[in-house]
Amino acid sequence: MMEPMTRAPTGVPPSFVLGLGLIGGSLLRAAATVSGASGWARNPDTRNMVRTAGYQVFDTPEETIRQAAEQDGLLVLATPPGAYDALLAIVNDVAPRSSLTDIASVKRPVAEQVAVCCPEARYIGSHPMAGTQFSGWEAGSAALFDGAAWVTCLDEDSDLDVWSDVATLALAIGSRVVPADADAHDDAVPRGSHPPHLLALALAQVGEAGGSLSLSLAASSFADGTRVAGTRPELIRAMCEGNRSALIGAMDEALGILGVARASLASTGSLQRLTAGGHHARDAFDHREDGLTSLELTGEDLIDQLLAVGSAGGYVTGIEGGGKDIRVQVRYPDHD
Amino acid sequence: MMEPMTRAPTGVPPSFVLGLGLIGGSLLRAAATVSGASGWARNPDTRNMVRTAGYQVFDTPEETIRQAAEQDGLLVLATPPGAYDALLAIVNDVAPRSSLTDIASVKRPVAEQVAVCCPEARYIGSHPMAGTQFSGWEAGSAALFDGAAWVTCLDEDSDLDVWSDVATLALAIGSRVVPADADAHDDAVPRGSHPPHLLALALAQVGEAGGSLSLSLAASSFADGTRVAGTRPELIRAMCEGNRSALIGAMDEALGILGVARASLASTGSLQRLTAGGHHARDAFDHREDGLTSLELTGEDLIDQLLAVGSAGGYVTGIEGGGKDIRVQVRYPDHD
Repeated sequence: MMEPMTRAPTGVPPSFVLGLGLIGGSLLRAAATVSGASGWARNPDTRNMVRTAGYQVFDTPEETIRQAAEQDGLLVLATPPGAYDALLAIVNDVAPRSSLTDIASVKRPVAEQVAVCCPEARYIGSHPMAGTQFSGWEAGSAALFDGAAWVTCLDEDSDLDVWSDVATLALAIGSRVVPADADAHDDAVPRGSHPPHLLALALAQVGEAGGSLSLSLAASSFADGTRVAGTRPELIRAMCEGNRSALIGAMDEALGILGVARASLASTGSLQRLTAGGHHARDAFDHREDGLTSLELTGEDLIDQLLAVGSAGGYVTGIEGGGKDIRVQVRYPDHD
Repeated sequence: MMEPMTRAPTGVPPSFVLGLGLIGGSLLRAAATVSGASGWARNPDTRNMVRTAGYQVFDTPEETIRQAAEQDGLLVLATPPGAYDALLAIVNDVAPRSSLTDIASVKRPVAEQVAVCCPEARYIGSHPMAGTQFSGWEAGSAALFDGAAWVTCLDEDSDLDVWSDVATLALAIGSRVVPADADAHDDAVPRGSHPPHLLALALAQVGEAGGSLSLSLAASSFADGTRVAGTRPELIRAMCEGNRSALIGAMDEALGILGVARASLASTGSLQRLTAGGHHARDAFDHREDGLTSLELTGEDLIDQLLAVGSAGGYVTGIEGGGKDIRVQVRYPDHD
């Protein structure tokens, strides 16, 4: 008979992590430092390894889901997204009103899956923006989320109590919590992480096509600009191919900007527009955290306020109270 | 009456630098540590500043050129390339058979200029691949060339004695001397330094177009991939617009690679080709110096041997003897 976990004095809910690979395994380790945490992995060898490391592990997803419901805990889908359908069906059988989050890097498709497979679940989509080039339980670390952005999805129907559970957990393990609409997330993320990989891959090939002399004379700009081309191809593909339509949009923008610059260079010899626009954009990136102001949000339109903070580049730093009395501390970029 | 400079025991020729901005001023400082060095600047205030700093400065290009010829020194064109025509005309009047090099970042156009304006000059084109985002004498440093590649141009008509002077100076101030054909240089350099800037500028704009959320969620790949977009726009323009036709070729290659990837992503959902090719290319860059072997070159076909070394990614590390007995130590990447 297992000791039931209770909510830690910090208000962090007990976590029940389905899938104990790099992200799920790191989350189990990190969550265990701030509250109760347990999990399940499909592979029995992994379960043994995690148990040997001293963590609580269930033998089935059913048991994990049941315990989460009984202990008012947070259920976290952390398997590869291909397994979500099957797990959501079990959640719907065992505890259809579970507090539920996930860790997938695209949010709208998962929200739709949950709506279909487990419509009563109190679901808040998550995207902890942390990772390494390695995978599996052994590659995990309790420090993985420290300083990383953790996107939490909100819409008008979101359950703020569950959002508060997710955000409190993410804050407790060191993340910067960014509230976002699922569609806005799915548009924004590819811009900031996928095109850099694709352009780096193209750049590396242009350099290599110049032969050894070209690589031997390459400047530090080439070394920087191609660094992520060294990432394992299967990881880049998994990241980029999974968010195809948004990525195609971002690629078309990049191709458009470069095509206009190429035409301008060929016709007038000038790169004025590209250099001015790009410099301005990098400047905006460098100063994205300038003028951050601390605010406390509360009230009936809290969801709208939180979405406005995330969309302006701000993030959540603390949560107090609960229910109608919830108060959320944020850093808000006051650019006016 | 000035003390005539003589060749240093190291075999480094005295340098006469026309133009004392960032590169010329750094070269004067560096060369003065290994041999005689003097120069001229158009601006009288600069001349005073350089004199005050303890360096020998002539008041006219004519006097500088005459002294260089009398002392068997090396004349270095280090003004902005727009002034080369006028200076070459003076060289042709004062000392038409001068030992001459330059520091421009494109080599074929300068070689043609020299052939027209000063056809008897013993000219070896140089491209010291060093710089900062600043300009002017005040921004210079004797350490600027330390560890940098210094391209020295060769063709079948090159005077190896002058090449040896240029290379000996470059080696003495810490550069890695890369022999190259002027056309090969003009094709290779844009691949390794110009497209990284253009792609970084486009990438920054794609990120900014996603708004504050996109910049706030941007990964380290975005920070790396856009770093050089922070360079002053006028410097990027000066670098890129000056080598327009080679750059257009390199841009078309990048656009072609990205366009094929975009079509593949849209039609089959796969980025296999881009990721595999780019990863392979970055791997080649990471291992560009693997298996370097030390060799000593000599003999009648030395120019061909040197060009083969540079084109294979190798470089010169030392020079001994002179005339027909010149022996050149190189590091040669033996990839077989």
